[in-house]
Amino acid sequence: MTLAGRHLISINDFSNEEIEAVLNLADEMSSAIEKGKRLDLCQGKELYTIFYEPSTRTRSSFETAMHRLGGTVVTHAEAQVTSSAAKGESIADTIRVLERYADIIVMRHPLDGSTRLAAEHSSVPVISGGDGAHEHPTQTLLDLYTIRKEKGAIRGKGVALCGDLRHGRTVHSLVIALARFGAEITCIAPPDFGLPDHIRDILKAYRCKLTEYESLEDIVAEGSLVLHQPRVESRESRVESRGGRGTPERSVSRLQTGFMSFLLENLDVLYFTRLQRERLPTGKIGDAAEESYRINRQLLEKSRDDALIMHPLPRTNELAYEVDQDKRAAYFRQAGYGVPVRMALIALLLGAVETRVSEWPKRKTPKLAKDVSGVRCLNPRCVTQAERYATAKFYPVNPQLLRCYYCDWMVQVV
Amino acid sequence: MTLAGRHLISINDFSNEEIEAVLNLADEMSSAIEKGKRLDLCQGKELYTIFYEPSTRTRSSFETAMHRLGGTVVTHAEAQVTSSAAKGESIADTIRVLERYADIIVMRHPLDGSTRLAAEHSSVPVISGGDGAHEHPTQTLLDLYTIRKEKGAIRGKGVALCGDLRHGRTVHSLVIALARFGAEITCIAPPDFGLPDHIRDILKAYRCKLTEYESLEDIVAEGSLVLHQPRVESRESRVESRGGRGTPERSVSRLQTGFMSFLLENLDVLYFTRLQRERLPTGKIGDAAEESYRINRQLLEKSRDDALIMHPLPRTNELAYEVDQDKRAAYFRQAGYGVPVRMALIALLLGAVETRVSEWPKRKTPKLAKDVSGVRCLNPRCVTQAERYATAKFYPVNPQLLRCYYCDWMVQVV
Amino acid sequence: MTLAGRHLISINDFSNEEIEAVLNLADEMSSAIEKGKRLDLCQGKELYTIFYEPSTRTRSSFETAMHRLGGTVVTHAEAQVTSSAAKGESIADTIRVLERYADIIVMRHPLDGSTRLAAEHSSVPVISGGDGAHEHPTQTLLDLYTIRKEKGAIRGKGVALCGDLRHGRTVHSLVIALARFGAEITCIAPPDFGLPDHIRDILKAYRCKLTEYESLEDIVAEGSLVLHQPRVESRESRVESRGGRGTPERSVSRLQTGFMSFLLENLDVLYFTRLQRERLPTGKIGDAAEESYRINRQLLEKSRDDALIMHPLPRTNELAYEVDQDKRAAYFRQAGYGVPVRMALIALLLGAVETRVSEWPKRKTPKLAKDVSGVRCLNPRCVTQAERYATAKFYPVNPQLLRCYYCDWMVQVV
Repeated sequence: MTLAGRHLISINDFSNEEIEAVLNLADEMSSAIEKGKRLDLCQGKELYTIFYEPSTRTRSSFETAMHRLGGTVVTHAEAQVTSSAAKGESIADTIRVLERYADIIVMRHPLDGSTRLAAEHSSVPVISGGDGAHEHPTQTLLDLYTIRKEKGAIRGKGVALCGDLRHGRTVHSLVIALARFGAEITCIAPPDFGLPDHIRDILKAYRCKLTEYESLEDIVAEGSLVLHQPRVESRESRVESRGGRGTPERSVSRLQTGFMSFLLENLDVLYFTRLQRERLPTGKIGDAAEESYRINRQLLEKSRDDALIMHPLPRTNELAYEVDQDKRAAYFRQAGYGVPVRMALIALLLGAVETRVSEWPKRKTPKLAKDVSGVRCLNPRCVTQAERYATAKFYPVNPQLLRCYYCDWMVQVV
Repeated sequence: MTLAGRHLISINDFSNEEIEAVLNLADEMSSAIEKGKRLDLCQGKELYTIFYEPSTRTRSSFETAMHRLGGTVVTHAEAQVTSSAAKGESIADTIRVLERYADIIVMRHPLDGSTRLAAEHSSVPVISGGDGAHEHPTQTLLDLYTIRKEKGAIRGKGVALCGDLRHGRTVHSLVIALARFGAEITCIAPPDFGLPDHIRDILKAYRCKLTEYESLEDIVAEGSLVLHQPRVESRESRVESRGGRGTPERSVSRLQTGFMSFLLENLDVLYFTRLQRERLPTGKIGDAAEESYRINRQLLEKSRDDALIMHPLPRTNELAYEVDQDKRAAYFRQAGYGVPVRMALIALLLGAVETRVSEWPKRKTPKLAKDVSGVRCLNPRCVTQAERYATAKFYPVNPQLLRCYYCDWMVQVV
Repeated sequence: MTLAGRHLISINDFSNEEIEAVLNLADEMSSAIEKGKRLDLCQGKELYTIFYEPSTRTRSSFETAMHRLGGTVVTHAEAQVTSSAAKGESIADTIRVLERYADIIVMRHPLDGSTRLAAEHSSVPVISGGDGAHEHPTQTLLDLYTIRKEKGAIRGKGVALCGDLRHGRTVHSLVIALARFGAEITCIAPPDFGLPDHIRDILKAYRCKLTEYESLEDIVAEGSLVLHQPRVESRESRVESRGGRGTPERSVSRLQTGFMSFLLENLDVLYFTRLQRERLPTGKIGDAAEESYRINRQLLEKSRDDALIMHPLPRTNELAYEVDQDKRAAYFRQAGYGVPVRMALIALLLGAVETRVSEWPKRKTPKLAKDVSGVRCLNPRCVTQAERYATAKFYPVNPQLLRCYYCDWMVQVV
């Protein structure tokens, strides 16, 4: 079997076996790079990078990956300004032209589902470099690669995700993949910054062990963390736990001080993401609160010696510079893995390398819902809102619920 | 003979034989691409793309063309911001530096005649990627290639150009080339959007069969088109026809309903261009009018089964998405031909391929007019208005008339 | 010995022998280019150009240089907009990621010392493409190359620098290098536009023969230049000369008319730089004054037949277009030398070519000053002002004076 000609828009476009094929090949790419071995696997092939939003790591590492494979690159680094998008051209039209020039396309766009729309109109593989707040699947591949390479495996590892888990596309792709590979997930996010419902629903389907906390509100004098509002594993049990608390603030604090130590001792990976201050609710949350989603020397001291501190970068305040010197700080290595992982992905999608698995398990392609005329996706940032020629499409979740084909938002059917 | 070292600024810089040499080589390039054959014709050669205006198709296809020929590319995608033009550097100075780095240069600039000025200061070939409202010669080459490839020939074919024929540089280069290759041309444009006089004068010189209509003002209930003001072949006859009409609106409508059917039956190619709504005269023309320069299913039904719908892209409203599914829709294929055509052009100008024609007919280089000191071009967008070091130069048309060397505007000599 | 792995941030990072090694190799590169010989010295190597400011010559010639060496390039032409810098990422973080993708990095940034900061965080060579008003070392390399190639040597040549000598980074790197190679330097700059003190101090250390003039205030009727306020070789003697003048304006004028002829007869190189009108003191200086820092036909007539007119480009008014036709005009050739010089530099820093010199003289690495906590650089454009994680560092000049490690500004220690 082959991955040739496939798109990668959501991490769910690939089966676990397919993801592992990418990670295995990335290992080979990595050692080829280290040995300075020249690879001409993609000679004569043309990669297009079409970015409607700024990027340092994603675009760069894709372009270097293509060069290291012997291929060539055409760049649209600021497509919203330098391409015909500035004259109002639709995504579909842009792609229907560029697929005639390119052998493979990487696209980043601010609208959710935009890269899925692009893939629909392309006969050559389209890789998402990030679509709005939706997904960023190649970041997820390199996150998985980092954990596997540095911790030996993903299954059974305790991974904490900390920061803005609502708006970060990086986290959405990652948390699903972690669930699929059997990691144990802890989410730490301020109120209104937790995982979106559609992601939580997907995790539930994977029977993922998920623990959620609403805030690490303060770092107490003795250096341990205080959790304000614990949220326990499922929404049902969360309600119970809320009902059961006494004088909430104090008892919770005490509980959490001890719990935090326990928590940190069981975490293999601490994955931090940007928490944009301007998005935090004013009044409710202040400097101290922001501090509690931040990793610094104090938190490091409490963490395991072999923990991995990860971050998709760029960072703002949530990752103190003092952490950089610590051997557990993995985020620059993590960014560096972008090249071998993306080399592997490009080589596979272009059919330059056949995967080792003799036969893939049959992929179930989910069927679209019928009779949905008149239903529109309610996500204001969904690509179907802006590109009016795009037909709204949905997957049926249950008789009352539809999931948008482009951006994965749920729509209630009345 | 060789095309090596030549510039391409206007489609008139090349003789018909030279154009055919490009198109023939493009055919070879096209089949080489299809066979996945690697071409190293331009290995070690450096192409510079210098774009002062947005571009998707032109820049991309030039860069891919160079890569497919084995050469390398340096990109200035937004030269007005990222180059020394931002510090006020003149076109001449920029080119006099870059010609020392590049083996061949492609330049797009908003001023008419700017690329001619660049070519004057370059010892390496300069190809225009579009200069203001003046010309876009490589678009013309691929338009000709499309017609020749898909209709077998250009001579004798009926080609209708529809939309804004005044401001579109694409159309100006094309209509001249069509005339030179013996196509029969029909122009359909709103009042004040017809061909500019200097283009019409050139066509006259080629004894081109030209028919012009001022508007397709409405689509009548039964689905046939109504032409509001017919303009007959020459300006003289137009005056007559106007004088001869009775109750103009009604009679013309009737006449045109029948005529339109006749017209569509005789058209091999329908070439649409962008009609920018904000440029249309307010009051005079409304939604319905705009609709009449638009191709949709109704118009397709009236057209010949083997007609070719072309468009330089990007489109706005003039080309309904429903047309895309029709086999006659050629515009994405047309854009795709940009790669083989530009490969052929680059290879010829770099002397990497010698043309087959054993000896070219001697090209008549027109002589510049003498004693024109004090005469300035009146085109407000002519490059000579902005780049003051550029000496105004003119070709003599007749004792009373001069044509600007840079932008082709006519100047009356008193 | 080898230059492999070294950074080039200041021209003082290289010894004279090292600079000569670059220039010698540039000669070989130049003749290889002329012979059309293909060089694959850097095949498989990746150059990153990261430009936070516009550039035509520097970025282009680096990219072409890398292509001519067989290497590949990833471009960030407008990094302040298209990279994560737009999301507030620090220079250090950007570099710590990109050094994992690139084999060598060229960076231009508006802050003084920014490229030094980048080099500190990179394990691969960083070349400065210009840092604010501080230095532009590769421009200096090609300036030296131009003088050596066209005048046979640098030692003993009379070189005049004319224009804004205060804010031009080009001039700062150059004047130091000229001093080190034994040129005789004449500076001609308006009041407040002379060399900054820290540069003048460095020149003094090299015992450079330096003559400074404050203005060429007018071109007198007979076509000779009038110097308004002569400043003699050292600051001490300048004070004397000022004290000794009678009716200053008139006598000085007469003196200078004769002196100018003498001066021009002894100048091998006239190096002009941009004089930005908006920076000139209003009232004090007008059109005529600006004219006196300008080279035109009149000045050319007074200059030696074998003089070299140089300019880093882009020019504004200080270099009349009429000069271009003169054989002494070297500035476009000078820009052209950017390719072979940068090829040589890249090849050496990547270790693709070993230098001929069997053993280098030991480089004295100056030691940083100790106990400087609390001291900050006073340069408002120093990178340490903007990137707060950067620790201020200084070299000791004398017990009362420190020199900023990043931007070379002097700080008085109280």
